[in-house]
Amino acid sequence: MKIFLSVSFSAEVDEKGNVQKAYRSDLETLIQKLEELGHKVYCALAEEKWTINNQNPVSLLKKELEKIDDSDIFVAVLGHNISCGVQLSMGYALAKEKRLVIASTIGAKHGWVNSALSGLENISSLNFEFYDELGTQIQELISR
Amino acid sequence: MKIFLSVSFSAEVDEKGNVQKAYRSDLETLIQKLEELGHKVYCALAEEKWTINNQNPVSLLKKELEKIDDSDIFVAVLGHNISCGVQLSMGYALAKEKRLVIASTIGAKHGWVNSALSGLENISSLNFEFYDELGTQIQELISR
Repeated sequence: MKIFLSVSFSAEVDEKGNVQKAYRSDLETLIQKLEELGHKVYCALAEEKWTINNQNPVSLLKKELEKIDDSDIFVAVLGHNISCGVQLSMGYALAKEKRLVIASTIGAKHGWVNSALSGLENISSLNFEFYDELGTQIQELISR
Repeated sequence: MKIFLSVSFSAEVDEKGNVQKAYRSDLETLIQKLEELGHKVYCALAEEKWTINNQNPVSLLKKELEKIDDSDIFVAVLGHNISCGVQLSMGYALAKEKRLVIASTIGAKHGWVNSALSGLENISSLNFEFYDELGTQIQELISR
């Protein structure tokens, strides 16, 4: 299936605009796992070569929205900090009636609205501790 | 016109779950101004009688989404803190092709995605310092 992977971007880059190494490695592990399971994964960070420097924000946002339109499943990864972009994309995907998976890092606090989301139809929530297990958890959810 | 007013909620309540007095007063001023200008305003905080205690989060979220569907214009008020709910609602309204007005408090920092939004069609941005002027600013924008 075509998975749109929505993750925090601008808060996860170093002073040169490159995505933090550990975070990049975590996401690469997750993307690889999902691809091994036969999925096609779109993740803006990988698409942008793990740097925030090359992008025109408006074209990047437009591309993101098109990619959500084109996806079968929208997976949001919620870390410890709220991401403007992930939240916005989730709302967009919700309106487009995409199947949503909300994956929260253990201990992440995300306000009432994200908890409420899991009470809506077609939305699944899961908690994860390690990225290398997250791929399997997502697979279990969507293959039900 | 029917205006959906999207504002931060859960971060703006006191320990008893009631909306902070100054914030409530600011929003009441804004709502009153917009109503005087002939608009019908939906704002969850007013709808919930300025307390977070009575709500069932899932029904509140569902109601919010229905009210966005039913609105002519979606106005997001961005304060100093990122609001999960406002961001989510903006994405939803965007997908529903609503006319969007993004009103940012002066000095608010909101990541690349909110700046990028103002580069899309049908979205207007404005900066404001005082809530009593915001109603007029919104009116000027939407009557153009």
